[in-house]
Amino acid sequence: MRIAELSRVSGVPVPTIKYYLRENLLPPGELTSPNQASYGDLHVRRLRLIRALVDLAGVPVAQVKEVLEGLDSDTMSLHDQIGRAHRAITSHRQLTSCTPDTEAAAAQVDALLASRKWTVDSDAPALTTLTETIATMRSLGQEHLADLVNAYADAVEKFTDLEIAAVTANHPTPDQIAESVIIGTILGETLISSLRLLAQESISAHRWHQ
Amino acid sequence: MRIAELSRVSGVPVPTIKYYLRENLLPPGELTSPNQASYGDLHVRRLRLIRALVDLAGVPVAQVKEVLEGLDSDTMSLHDQIGRAHRAITSHRQLTSCTPDTEAAAAQVDALLASRKWTVDSDAPALTTLTETIATMRSLGQEHLADLVNAYADAVEKFTDLEIAAVTANHPTPDQIAESVIIGTILGETLISSLRLLAQESISAHRWHQ
Repeated sequence: MRIAELSRVSGVPVPTIKYYLRENLLPPGELTSPNQASYGDLHVRRLRLIRALVDLAGVPVAQVKEVLEGLDSDTMSLHDQIGRAHRAITSHRQLTSCTPDTEAAAAQVDALLASRKWTVDSDAPALTTLTETIATMRSLGQEHLADLVNAYADAVEKFTDLEIAAVTANHPTPDQIAESVIIGTILGETLISSLRLLAQESISAHRWHQ
Repeated sequence: MRIAELSRVSGVPVPTIKYYLRENLLPPGELTSPNQASYGDLHVRRLRLIRALVDLAGVPVAQVKEVLEGLDSDTMSLHDQIGRAHRAITSHRQLTSCTPDTEAAAAQVDALLASRKWTVDSDAPALTTLTETIATMRSLGQEHLADLVNAYADAVEKFTDLEIAAVTANHPTPDQIAESVIIGTILGETLISSLRLLAQESISAHRWHQ
C-alpha cells in the first residue's frame, strides 16, 4: 500500500509517518519508483506499537527508538532488550543526598533483594527509585506505607511470574517473545496503574463518600 | 526560621521556595517585619511533600497545587481529595476511535467492574486508560496479556486493602489520614512500578541472560 493508505489503516497522519521514517523508528518501504514506496502489514503493526508506547505509555520518541532498535537487533539478548524497555519507562536518577532515611531505605531494599533472591544489576534505575521512594515515605512520616514493601513485592512477584508464563506460552519464536515481553513490560504498567486507581476509588466511595 | 534556613533544612533552593510561595503551594510565613517572614516545621514538611510529588512521582506543579488545595480545604471530602490525586497522576484521555478491539475491551472492563462490585465514576480517567490499554494489547496481537487483567485485579485489590488499612490504623485525625492517603496513592505507584521492574529483571536474568 502507499503512504496515504498506510495512514488511513493505521490512523497515524502522513507527516507523523514521514517523521518516524526519517527517525528510523519505521523501516523504509519498498521503492516502487524513485519517489514512491510501498508499505505492508509489518508497517501497520509497527505503527500501532509506536503509538501505544508514545500515546498510551507516554514514552518519549527517543526512548521508543532505543526499544525498537533492541527489537530489530539480531544480536541483542532478550535480557538486554528488557533493560532498554526498563530505561524507557524510568528516569535515571541519582540518590540526591545521604540522610538517615536514605540509609535506612537502602538497608531495607538490600534485605528485600536478599530475602527474595532477586538478582538485579546494582545500577538498575528502578533500584534508585525504590530506595528514594521508601526514604521519602519515611521522611514524610509514612513509615507504615514504607513497611508495605514486602506485601507489594509478594503481589508483584506473583503477577510477574504470570506475565512471563503467558508470554512464553503464547509465542513460538524468540522475536515474538521479545515483542510481547516489551509490550507487557510497558503497557502492563499502564494496566496495573489504572486498575489500582479504580480499586482505590471504589474502596474510597464505600468508605468516605456521602 | 528565615527563608535561608528553610532552604538549608529542606534542601530546596531559595528561588524555588519563593516560586512555591507565589504559586500558593506553600502557605506564607509569619511576617516578622515588612520584608521578613518566619517559617516553621509545617513549611519544611510541606516542602518535602511538594518535592516528593514533583521530583519522585513526576507530577506537574499545576496538579500538585490542586492536590494541596484539596488537602488544605476544610470542606472537601476525602473521596474528592483522592479524586484530585488520581487526576494528578493520570492524563485525561478520550477513547480515540471505536474499533472492534475497543468494543471488546469496554465489554471486558464492564464485566470486570461488575464481577468485583467496584463502584467507580463512569468518567474516571483510569477507566479510559484501562479500556485503551486492553484494546491496544488486543490490536497488537497480545490477547494473552489482556487476559491477565483479572489476575492483576486480584493482586491490586489485595494491596489496596492493605494500604487503606495501614493508613487508617496509623493516623488518628481525618487531616492526617487524607495526607497519608494522598502520599500512598501517588508514591505507592512509584513503589509498585519499581518493584515490578526489579522482579522482571531478576526473572529475566535467570531465564535469558548468558
